[in-house]
Amino acid sequence: MIKVGIIGYGYWGPNLVRNFFSQKDCNIKAVADSRPNRLELLRKSYPTINAVLNAEDIINDADIDAVIIATPVFTHFELAKKALSNGKHVLLEKPMASSVKECEILIELALQKNLQLMVDHTFLYTGAVEKIKEIIDADILGNIKYLDSTRINLGLFQPDINVLWDLAPHDLSILRYLHEEKPYSINATGISHTNNGIENIAFMTINYPSGFIAHLNCSWSSPVKVRMMLIGGDKKMILYNDVEPTEKIKIYDTAYQVKTDDDKNQILVDYRVGDIYVPKINSKEALASVANDFITGVLESKMPRSSYHIGLDIVKLLEASEQSIKNKGIEIKIN
Amino acid sequence: MIKVGIIGYGYWGPNLVRNFFSQKDCNIKAVADSRPNRLELLRKSYPTINAVLNAEDIINDADIDAVIIATPVFTHFELAKKALSNGKHVLLEKPMASSVKECEILIELALQKNLQLMVDHTFLYTGAVEKIKEIIDADILGNIKYLDSTRINLGLFQPDINVLWDLAPHDLSILRYLHEEKPYSINATGISHTNNGIENIAFMTINYPSGFIAHLNCSWSSPVKVRMMLIGGDKKMILYNDVEPTEKIKIYDTAYQVKTDDDKNQILVDYRVGDIYVPKINSKEALASVANDFITGVLESKMPRSSYHIGLDIVKLLEASEQSIKNKGIEIKIN
Amino acid sequence: MIKVGIIGYGYWGPNLVRNFFSQKDCNIKAVADSRPNRLELLRKSYPTINAVLNAEDIINDADIDAVIIATPVFTHFELAKKALSNGKHVLLEKPMASSVKECEILIELALQKNLQLMVDHTFLYTGAVEKIKEIIDADILGNIKYLDSTRINLGLFQPDINVLWDLAPHDLSILRYLHEEKPYSINATGISHTNNGIENIAFMTINYPSGFIAHLNCSWSSPVKVRMMLIGGDKKMILYNDVEPTEKIKIYDTAYQVKTDDDKNQILVDYRVGDIYVPKINSKEALASVANDFITGVLESKMPRSSYHIGLDIVKLLEASEQSIKNKGIEIKIN
Amino acid sequence: MIKVGIIGYGYWGPNLVRNFFSQKDCNIKAVADSRPNRLELLRKSYPTINAVLNAEDIINDADIDAVIIATPVFTHFELAKKALSNGKHVLLEKPMASSVKECEILIELALQKNLQLMVDHTFLYTGAVEKIKEIIDADILGNIKYLDSTRINLGLFQPDINVLWDLAPHDLSILRYLHEEKPYSINATGISHTNNGIENIAFMTINYPSGFIAHLNCSWSSPVKVRMMLIGGDKKMILYNDVEPTEKIKIYDTAYQVKTDDDKNQILVDYRVGDIYVPKINSKEALASVANDFITGVLESKMPRSSYHIGLDIVKLLEASEQSIKNKGIEIKIN
Repeated sequence: MIKVGIIGYGYWGPNLVRNFFSQKDCNIKAVADSRPNRLELLRKSYPTINAVLNAEDIINDADIDAVIIATPVFTHFELAKKALSNGKHVLLEKPMASSVKECEILIELALQKNLQLMVDHTFLYTGAVEKIKEIIDADILGNIKYLDSTRINLGLFQPDINVLWDLAPHDLSILRYLHEEKPYSINATGISHTNNGIENIAFMTINYPSGFIAHLNCSWSSPVKVRMMLIGGDKKMILYNDVEPTEKIKIYDTAYQVKTDDDKNQILVDYRVGDIYVPKINSKEALASVANDFITGVLESKMPRSSYHIGLDIVKLLEASEQSIKNKGIEIKIN
Repeated sequence: MIKVGIIGYGYWGPNLVRNFFSQKDCNIKAVADSRPNRLELLRKSYPTINAVLNAEDIINDADIDAVIIATPVFTHFELAKKALSNGKHVLLEKPMASSVKECEILIELALQKNLQLMVDHTFLYTGAVEKIKEIIDADILGNIKYLDSTRINLGLFQPDINVLWDLAPHDLSILRYLHEEKPYSINATGISHTNNGIENIAFMTINYPSGFIAHLNCSWSSPVKVRMMLIGGDKKMILYNDVEPTEKIKIYDTAYQVKTDDDKNQILVDYRVGDIYVPKINSKEALASVANDFITGVLESKMPRSSYHIGLDIVKLLEASEQSIKNKGIEIKIN
Repeated sequence: MIKVGIIGYGYWGPNLVRNFFSQKDCNIKAVADSRPNRLELLRKSYPTINAVLNAEDIINDADIDAVIIATPVFTHFELAKKALSNGKHVLLEKPMASSVKECEILIELALQKNLQLMVDHTFLYTGAVEKIKEIIDADILGNIKYLDSTRINLGLFQPDINVLWDLAPHDLSILRYLHEEKPYSINATGISHTNNGIENIAFMTINYPSGFIAHLNCSWSSPVKVRMMLIGGDKKMILYNDVEPTEKIKIYDTAYQVKTDDDKNQILVDYRVGDIYVPKINSKEALASVANDFITGVLESKMPRSSYHIGLDIVKLLEASEQSIKNKGIEIKIN
Repeated sequence: MIKVGIIGYGYWGPNLVRNFFSQKDCNIKAVADSRPNRLELLRKSYPTINAVLNAEDIINDADIDAVIIATPVFTHFELAKKALSNGKHVLLEKPMASSVKECEILIELALQKNLQLMVDHTFLYTGAVEKIKEIIDADILGNIKYLDSTRINLGLFQPDINVLWDLAPHDLSILRYLHEEKPYSINATGISHTNNGIENIAFMTINYPSGFIAHLNCSWSSPVKVRMMLIGGDKKMILYNDVEPTEKIKIYDTAYQVKTDDDKNQILVDYRVGDIYVPKINSKEALASVANDFITGVLESKMPRSSYHIGLDIVKLLEASEQSIKNKGIEIKIN
């Protein structure tokens, strides 16, 4: 039985509590939040959980095995470092931390202490992403040529991080999970419509040695909610529309094949347009699988799917995107 | 009565012939195409129009007042220059020409000879764009903050121009027509999946002094056809979905208002989410209005809506985008 | 403080418990279900509620003021009769009971004892229906000419009631709430694809003196979920699409006006097609309002919106529809 | 080479002319319409076709082999009778004629004279219906249990025929083509919102010996255009949505299987919900295939797909539906 403490009972906290509560081999001992009204809410629904104002009460509790950190990004590093130092396994909300350097220190510490360090990239556990992974692993798409994602909404402007740090971790984790090739560079552009210089609309292009390209469009300022991802292979293509209630994934038997003709005046591409196939998606709650993967990982000393490798790679891209935006869209090399 | 010759009877040519044919004050005297089978098609439907193999037969015909050029972009300049030199009014398909320099020479020539020089940016004459223009002119959106356009499809790979030169003129002409502010710079990225180095997927960010930003996503490699444009103002926002048969424009009574609070830890933005309004769109054929604007412009020596100013501005952005892509996404200044 | 007992903890029961639990002026004392595993589930989430196997334990509990009955329809009458006889206010799930006669006896008893008797027609409390009611009351639609509803899905075949008794109460309650005219007759047709003769697909036409007509299409056998209602007035028309997440209601500025021309060879109708307006819908949980209306009704001796009048009228139509189906679609008079 | 005359150049006439014009082995000699402005339109587009005011000029022209009749329904019988009497093959627009009796006389005459008599049920030649037919013939759906069709729109009120005579021939022809079982009876209801008593909204239920059921919902008074047909088998189900531009047909791997359990308190049905498959549809123009089937039928003395048998069966159902509506929805036996 793993004893767990959760730090942060804001927007995501109640979902974490609900899912870890119903997890086997796991017991939520305490939840910390500095806002008394949030603790009041917790007590009403979960009278058996200890509600504390101070995160230290969790980090220093010798009886707690694992700490889940669901606080603003800028606090991740200090809280996780203390928890790991105190010998606790850690699950961090996405993104992992505020910089590559912070992530590397946490990973080093976890390795030294032989502790789990996982990042909650929930999307990797959705039925839709699992199905796409299965399709790609079965080589149904052929060589993957591009991933193009739009994630826009009327979203809460965050005071500390820009829209890429807020929304892109979803797309970047899916991208990293589905296509393991290492990117060599990134370009990003964006705009801030507030006086704090934090971008509320931003775009990212990620370049890969093989000719694969990824593009992200993130916005807090769209009147409509769009969560659409296209993944194009040279055999088939996928449309992943996450706002669709049931038909989230469509596989198009559509392809373009490049001919090796050298005559530049000729059209060099062959087309095929065919049927569409809509696989049934497992409609489970992804966060339950996250909780299970974390607890199992702790119990069995096993690397979870949403590993710190993925967490680090995503912060690398976010850090590079910020550099690019601040330098007028210039290409930033990765590594 | 304006006597017209049309050069090029490929994909767009039959639409031009049909619309100019039913235009008042206009007579199609000849159509040229170097492919005999295309001329055969023309003769079958329009036995009264002279079908010629050679564009020169039109350009040199003293009886023809105006020439419409619907050939590949790289031929625009030579054909238009000769036609203007021979004293003929010219309507060019989009984009106007292959470079800013070419456009400037043509404009100079048209001014010298006092001839019409118009570019067929058809979208400016659609009921949808006219309605959006009307809404913006009535200040219903407030200060416009961004335009974000996605125009992707399984499109024919062009052998001579990349996907931005092919598709972006539509978006750029709409952008230029709706928002007259001069951009100061552009960033573009993209990828070629063929051996000719011509991009089939590309992205463009256009930067403006006021903080307004425009972004274009163009692709010939999408299994689904998306033609979606978001225009965000600080009072209302528009979703223009061109693949919708009837509800092309939705006006969202949605806004975010930036507070002038200096406390950076506060969320600085106020939200409002309200009703949606779907105006009825005039369902006329846009190309009929293009034909009418050109003929009227010739008869009354009037600048058409889709003027050479717009044509030139678009080629400026396309040229800059190509420079940016070739220079790894670097910012290119406009003018 | 009203003390409440709930009978039935099946599909709908947990929703009732959750909503009455968070209701002010109300205390759930006990929940009854004959299935121990259902009670187990209840105890896990609500340790403070008394879980009992026998409905009698609730009906005979002198400490309980009001009873909510969420059991199969054929049990409604006996349970409600006993509860009312024991002096308890009653909220019945829809439909009210198995026959007009049963409904009338219950109403008589409630009147004698001066007790609340309410039927849970939840749809009357949704933001969408409230908005439509508001629009109709403001005479925006003009004279209402028809209501056409399709409610089809892959639904659980009920062993005791046909698809109209199962699904039509939703449509009939909305119809009755929005259009108070008394119908004079009904026709119904349908088919049973099982060996028990209970229709899984059925259709109902309801006829009104004014020329208004209502039509219902109900099915448990559709691969797609459709919940679409059209309400046509001679000034405007409404499309109510309940499976749309946000744009549930569209008001079409569309009308046809009948001319009083006597020449039968002339087309007698004028058309107008205009804009569409999508009002913002309050996204509250309807069942919370049901709970509030019931508790308030008990406390203030006030007739709730979803009154027994509505409950009875719906059973009248259901009973008549069954008669019509069994008599090959013959017209059945109402009253 | 078949010489053809077309009577009626109204809404559908230009489509007939265009398609027969481009048909091989066929020559349009003349088109008749009593309205000079319609003939003017014809002359402008087809200067080689003889434009005549009087239908008799076509029917009596010894040089014409086949007559196409695209006039109001009430004129079909007299025109077709004369044409057949004069030894001409006949293609009639749908519905075939105003009564079963008229249809039977025309069929008798065609058989006597050994002439083609075809009805233009265009939908039978669409790529979508051909694909559904192919799927059903391959027994992919299993035993077909129901067909449910909604065909509603803001349509022109016809002065001579009700909405079922106007719209239902489309659904009835598809139904008859896909499911050849003979129905035994029909029920219909409807309402007229004009002073001429002609229904503008109507519903039809068609009953079959096997337990298959068909239902039609037709309206000229809907603000939205819906053309949706569900076809449910016990192995799979089809959704045919004709207003979808590309994904017209969806095959749901969804089924309900009736158990032979006699216990009526048990739920008797097993469910399966699976993937969805969207086959590519041939996007040809259906009317070109109609023209080809007619001309080929004449040349090779072959029964066309859209035979007079289908034409007659549809008029039987329409006639019965009218009887049912006029008799308050009573069941009308077929044959």
